[in-house]
Amino acid sequence: MFFHDKRLQYTVRCEKPNPLFARALQQAIGGVEGEIRVCLQYLFQGWGFRGPAKYKDMLLNTATEEIGHIEMLAYAVALNLENAPASMQEEAAGASSVVGAVLGGSSPTASIETLLGGMNQRHLLSAGMAATPENCNGVPFNASHVYASGNAAADMYCNVAAESTGRVLACRLYHLTDDPGMKDFLSFLIARDTMHQQQWLAVIEEMGGSAALPIPNSFNQANEATDFSYVFVGTNQDGSPPPAGRWTQGPSLDGKGTFSATVGVPHGQEPVLGPARPDSGAQVEQMSAKPPA
Amino acid sequence: MFFHDKRLQYTVRCEKPNPLFARALQQAIGGVEGEIRVCLQYLFQGWGFRGPAKYKDMLLNTATEEIGHIEMLAYAVALNLENAPASMQEEAAGASSVVGAVLGGSSPTASIETLLGGMNQRHLLSAGMAATPENCNGVPFNASHVYASGNAAADMYCNVAAESTGRVLACRLYHLTDDPGMKDFLSFLIARDTMHQQQWLAVIEEMGGSAALPIPNSFNQANEATDFSYVFVGTNQDGSPPPAGRWTQGPSLDGKGTFSATVGVPHGQEPVLGPARPDSGAQVEQMSAKPPA
Amino acid sequence: MFFHDKRLQYTVRCEKPNPLFARALQQAIGGVEGEIRVCLQYLFQGWGFRGPAKYKDMLLNTATEEIGHIEMLAYAVALNLENAPASMQEEAAGASSVVGAVLGGSSPTASIETLLGGMNQRHLLSAGMAATPENCNGVPFNASHVYASGNAAADMYCNVAAESTGRVLACRLYHLTDDPGMKDFLSFLIARDTMHQQQWLAVIEEMGGSAALPIPNSFNQANEATDFSYVFVGTNQDGSPPPAGRWTQGPSLDGKGTFSATVGVPHGQEPVLGPARPDSGAQVEQMSAKPPA
Amino acid sequence: MFFHDKRLQYTVRCEKPNPLFARALQQAIGGVEGEIRVCLQYLFQGWGFRGPAKYKDMLLNTATEEIGHIEMLAYAVALNLENAPASMQEEAAGASSVVGAVLGGSSPTASIETLLGGMNQRHLLSAGMAATPENCNGVPFNASHVYASGNAAADMYCNVAAESTGRVLACRLYHLTDDPGMKDFLSFLIARDTMHQQQWLAVIEEMGGSAALPIPNSFNQANEATDFSYVFVGTNQDGSPPPAGRWTQGPSLDGKGTFSATVGVPHGQEPVLGPARPDSGAQVEQMSAKPPA
Amino acid sequence: MFFHDKRLQYTVRCEKPNPLFARALQQAIGGVEGEIRVCLQYLFQGWGFRGPAKYKDMLLNTATEEIGHIEMLAYAVALNLENAPASMQEEAAGASSVVGAVLGGSSPTASIETLLGGMNQRHLLSAGMAATPENCNGVPFNASHVYASGNAAADMYCNVAAESTGRVLACRLYHLTDDPGMKDFLSFLIARDTMHQQQWLAVIEEMGGSAALPIPNSFNQANEATDFSYVFVGTNQDGSPPPAGRWTQGPSLDGKGTFSATVGVPHGQEPVLGPARPDSGAQVEQMSAKPPA
Amino acid sequence: MFFHDKRLQYTVRCEKPNPLFARALQQAIGGVEGEIRVCLQYLFQGWGFRGPAKYKDMLLNTATEEIGHIEMLAYAVALNLENAPASMQEEAAGASSVVGAVLGGSSPTASIETLLGGMNQRHLLSAGMAATPENCNGVPFNASHVYASGNAAADMYCNVAAESTGRVLACRLYHLTDDPGMKDFLSFLIARDTMHQQQWLAVIEEMGGSAALPIPNSFNQANEATDFSYVFVGTNQDGSPPPAGRWTQGPSLDGKGTFSATVGVPHGQEPVLGPARPDSGAQVEQMSAKPPA
Repeated sequence: MFFHDKRLQYTVRCEKPNPLFARALQQAIGGVEGEIRVCLQYLFQGWGFRGPAKYKDMLLNTATEEIGHIEMLAYAVALNLENAPASMQEEAAGASSVVGAVLGGSSPTASIETLLGGMNQRHLLSAGMAATPENCNGVPFNASHVYASGNAAADMYCNVAAESTGRVLACRLYHLTDDPGMKDFLSFLIARDTMHQQQWLAVIEEMGGSAALPIPNSFNQANEATDFSYVFVGTNQDGSPPPAGRWTQGPSLDGKGTFSATVGVPHGQEPVLGPARPDSGAQVEQMSAKPPA
Repeated sequence: MFFHDKRLQYTVRCEKPNPLFARALQQAIGGVEGEIRVCLQYLFQGWGFRGPAKYKDMLLNTATEEIGHIEMLAYAVALNLENAPASMQEEAAGASSVVGAVLGGSSPTASIETLLGGMNQRHLLSAGMAATPENCNGVPFNASHVYASGNAAADMYCNVAAESTGRVLACRLYHLTDDPGMKDFLSFLIARDTMHQQQWLAVIEEMGGSAALPIPNSFNQANEATDFSYVFVGTNQDGSPPPAGRWTQGPSLDGKGTFSATVGVPHGQEPVLGPARPDSGAQVEQMSAKPPA
Repeated sequence: MFFHDKRLQYTVRCEKPNPLFARALQQAIGGVEGEIRVCLQYLFQGWGFRGPAKYKDMLLNTATEEIGHIEMLAYAVALNLENAPASMQEEAAGASSVVGAVLGGSSPTASIETLLGGMNQRHLLSAGMAATPENCNGVPFNASHVYASGNAAADMYCNVAAESTGRVLACRLYHLTDDPGMKDFLSFLIARDTMHQQQWLAVIEEMGGSAALPIPNSFNQANEATDFSYVFVGTNQDGSPPPAGRWTQGPSLDGKGTFSATVGVPHGQEPVLGPARPDSGAQVEQMSAKPPA
Repeated sequence: MFFHDKRLQYTVRCEKPNPLFARALQQAIGGVEGEIRVCLQYLFQGWGFRGPAKYKDMLLNTATEEIGHIEMLAYAVALNLENAPASMQEEAAGASSVVGAVLGGSSPTASIETLLGGMNQRHLLSAGMAATPENCNGVPFNASHVYASGNAAADMYCNVAAESTGRVLACRLYHLTDDPGMKDFLSFLIARDTMHQQQWLAVIEEMGGSAALPIPNSFNQANEATDFSYVFVGTNQDGSPPPAGRWTQGPSLDGKGTFSATVGVPHGQEPVLGPARPDSGAQVEQMSAKPPA
Repeated sequence: MFFHDKRLQYTVRCEKPNPLFARALQQAIGGVEGEIRVCLQYLFQGWGFRGPAKYKDMLLNTATEEIGHIEMLAYAVALNLENAPASMQEEAAGASSVVGAVLGGSSPTASIETLLGGMNQRHLLSAGMAATPENCNGVPFNASHVYASGNAAADMYCNVAAESTGRVLACRLYHLTDDPGMKDFLSFLIARDTMHQQQWLAVIEEMGGSAALPIPNSFNQANEATDFSYVFVGTNQDGSPPPAGRWTQGPSLDGKGTFSATVGVPHGQEPVLGPARPDSGAQVEQMSAKPPA
Repeated sequence: MFFHDKRLQYTVRCEKPNPLFARALQQAIGGVEGEIRVCLQYLFQGWGFRGPAKYKDMLLNTATEEIGHIEMLAYAVALNLENAPASMQEEAAGASSVVGAVLGGSSPTASIETLLGGMNQRHLLSAGMAATPENCNGVPFNASHVYASGNAAADMYCNVAAESTGRVLACRLYHLTDDPGMKDFLSFLIARDTMHQQQWLAVIEEMGGSAALPIPNSFNQANEATDFSYVFVGTNQDGSPPPAGRWTQGPSLDGKGTFSATVGVPHGQEPVLGPARPDSGAQVEQMSAKPPA
């Protein structure tokens, strides 16, 4: 069961509201690198966890923190929309003018058309100047991005991946703005992404590090076609060898094999399907094809 | 530019066609853990790669291999559909009967209704007994699952994540079937997933291992709120401490900090938005709210 | 069966074509507050209706009207695209110039780049200057937004909700434009939204008003955990009481209970799942976890 | 900021695990009538709220409760999957057999094929016997279903609609199962849906009831084409009058008009578009069409 | 503007309700080969049409007919759901039993579990035994499938494609059922698909046939790299020639060239991107890469 | 199995990088008229092909070529993003300035805000200045657009439709840019689209031309309601006849009938559903409705 404190986890302030930056911030809410995704991902991983209880606890603690990150970002978006244009005809000057505030504020060189064209129009039309669960292009979040595999190690790598792309995004947003309040807020999100990258890697280390590999480590490798398990397959048209690197020589990282490289060749047959069956909706000509040998 | 050899990378055979297993195999084609995803992911990572050329080459080699994996799976699906029912009234007996072949073959206890209800009906209705670019529930693949961040290390972790969930899926499919041809084919896919997990980890090692962290390593950590960078935040309602582990003590994995743990508290303000603006489509009552202090 | 009259339900004129407003109008076509949604919603509610025939008739009458609303909006979009730029290099001046018409017309301060960047580029690239079944951000309509529950009262509230957000949207569009033709057209849509809000509420009144509650009113409340049916549950972290209002005191609106408020506490157990099963694709460590008591 | 208690809001138990019912329960998690939707909807309504603070507080209290509802449902799904088949060849008999447990337990007449075909295969293949953020057909939740319009009254009707369809769903699930634990759990969800229907209606009453209509009540009705604001438009092909009811006579529910009915006729022009422009990608024949008069 | 007649365009009857066939019929409603798609496609093509008016009229006539096709299919689905199970525990015998009606009716060998597992559960849970705007796997219709390009000839080929896959689907549904009412109804849909295939081809003939090619015929072929316009490019890995056929020899079908075949070779350069820019969120190592020559 | 050559199929150069044109080019990558779609479409058609082998070979040859088209477009997008702004505060002047390069380069009149607002922000935020598998509005590609019906003739028309809308798109992009490198590259894509239109039409001719109609030609027309197979149905509200054309007179194009036209009338009954069943979640009032006669 969950509870709420009205205050934010960290201070969020905005000196120069900018509807174009509001749109950019949406990527951190509803983008694939964003906070709705990690929040739901950690929740579902925790709720479905089977195994040592402390990992479940850990997942739910961080999942709960992430709900508050969405909360802060939603506030940041709304602050950046405070003075967004609601009309193409709002006065371009005048002390009391909303547009004047925008033009004289964050975006001195931007016209009304630039703002209306460049913003997420749903911020105005659907939400009345507030955040939406969408990415920076207005595409709504889709929960297929919630990875919760039932395999603890696979899930940890999914989490590292999510926090890595998440921190890349936060750094890009940091560079994109020069609003001091936004920069301060983003410096906090960046720090938390640092920790979250670290903590999922720490779980992997605790779960055995290389002994956790290959994932899942519960599959009997005697059932695997191990001739193909540690060889890099090149697919250059001219038959030239693939690029050499750590992955083409030396012991494999799971300690169970030795890397090598080869030029790929077909080991299989030419795939042939039988003729189309009567009443299957095909053309007549497709039904008389020779069946596979 | 790409080229094609008619033969498959590995042999694909099926002794006991089973439309329920055909549906399950679709997860490996169009599911988020599947081959269309990794294929497009490696292609877009390679095509957009900036940095040392050998990583781009490596990405495109494996991406090219993955197209052939989709090819094999599509064939495997079609083979499992060879004798799927096209009619609820097909004869339940008789040597020449399609249904007889199914009933006497892979699924001796399954009725026509079971097969029709349990299969991906688009295999019959939309594709005429062939594979579709969908997952096991018939949901089409969505390219938002292609992660290509422009950050080489983040991308590598995304790839490890994809191959980890991919190998978990392939192992589950291996356990699900007892068809020898299918098991043999899956043992090959499992082996390739082993290698692909290993090779992306090898790239991370070659790119510096812990020196690559936190991702992106190009962001100046002086701009980060480092007080929050290596501390696990607990969110237990009763204020009890969060679960202890490798992530709450000892040096951080990037060698740049020391893990600790804390009970989370709000550091920020209560977020308050201004009243609704005139002409913004709100209710009258929303416009007279007191503005934030 | 349906029929068509070539004339529109209401006059649609546009004096100052504006591709940015064309994009905004798309929200009323393919947005979740838009006309494709209500049209399909009323059609499917009507087609699947079980109960007194007059409600089905009413639904199909209004559904049929809504098809004509999409028609008017599609025309309005096309009119606003009449002079949209098809090239970044079109002449910026000259009497016969398309761009001149735009620059000298609706958007005297807008550059070609502003128009091309701010418009729905599919208006140009995919539709050749015509409307698409998308929202204002170019996201295509998704029929999961068609609510037709088989419960007449639930459906009526869904319809009130749709027409409420629909009228909010139309009012925002009205404020956004200063084109007299567009304003006149929108004043008609606003009026129809007024009526449609009213008529669904009138159906609820006719179906018993509060006697229709709680929805569905066919469920035997003896099977309901009625201790929790009329109490507002607060979830403040500090245990402070939830906000007081009409919903925390007095008789409930269905006349079947009395409102109260409480501070929420967990009534349930700590959820525990069993260990991962062999062959389920988990890590080895997950399989030895202690089963739930 | 949010916090978590490990215990559930209400007890969730399952005596007869059934993977088909697990699939059905998913509709209450990730369906459009489900808990992820209302949770995100109330969160975004609260976070973007402008107006009297107590409504924001109320929204966030209930939003926080809803996170715990998803949590309970996720546990209920996992319990129903405890003994789901992981292989088409698991032993059909034997005391220790998983399949035996299923066959002898909840579904004595169901074959392995029936279970595998009828379940959400991602429960097995992607999640390792745990819940997913999807609906009962395996379609992932899409955040476009989060309605947060910035208009408080419109949002309340959206919430009534969501809780109405939500309670209809919960009642159907109640009838579908005969597991005592599931029935007890669902009786709690049904009760909370009763309260949530009531509380949003109570807000509407507190915000003025009919005075809140038409929504938005801030739009000056002098700008509305009021000739069309309170008249039901019939669209019968044969010109017969539309069905009579509360919506065709008497005062309108907002007290601002009188209902009437009419047979719809076109008031507008025939819409005509100009010829296709050169370089617009049309066929040559489309460019010589006569322009509109 | 649109009008409605309560009667269906053709009689729809069902003797043996079958929820599995109800699910299959959904592909003809909300599948990509279905009626919502063609209906919206013809509407948007007509509404956005530029050029000779008679084609617009033709499109809107057929679009209007298609609305009535969705109507008939929605009724057909509901009829097939008349006796679908609403509970896993409904009596399996007894004259008055719903389940008895099902078991003794269309599906004598199907168990309750088979029906519940094989049906679209949203038919029960979300719609109360009625049609939904989804395909046979329960995936909602997505309006990105509406092709309306602004090029009349391209649109006609899109329409031929839609009606071809549509008639294939209808024939498969015809074979799948043995209900006389359903077969009669489908024989009508098949006939209309025949006509609709024919009529779009007739438009192409009227618009010039081969003179309409290549589409768009308004593009000056002097701006086309015509060396590549009529040559089939083979991509066999071993350099063997591509398959010969009508497309490798003889005059091209537009009368503007001669078909030939060649073995594909790269004519372009190796693509090289510059190093990652500072502050772009890349890894440090990516910023020192050599720029392209 | 597939192979790769590092060189592109055709040269791709860009003199004046323009992030707005990068966004437009995305339609050719991930739009419904784009290359991911045709690539996957031809692959799945080929992999599932039943019938004469040469058509399968032909499909896979062209599918393989299309992978290389995506590759070229991805490079073209990246080139156009070379100098895109990463910050709203980048210097607006100065020889070394990125922004200076943009402002002084392709878009002398565009402000930073125009570029940031008008571009696909994910090019910056998610991809670090590289292509994404999305359309011009940032909507990700969805594999439901892959048409592979199992009917060879239907598939060919789907392919003609795809290449027709594809060439229309390429021509629009050609007109939109004045960059010589981009124009040269697009002239190649346009040429290949010409060939691909031609080759699919050539297959239809080889498969019998009109003898392939109606599709599928394997359905026994004796089972079709042929009274409705060659008659155009008008749906004008006033009963006026539908527009005359090739489709209302003369022999049908399949040589199996004669075109005619008629004014549409309902041939069917008024559809009536039974009352709602108990325990189906409906309102009480819906359960007492009279059942259909």
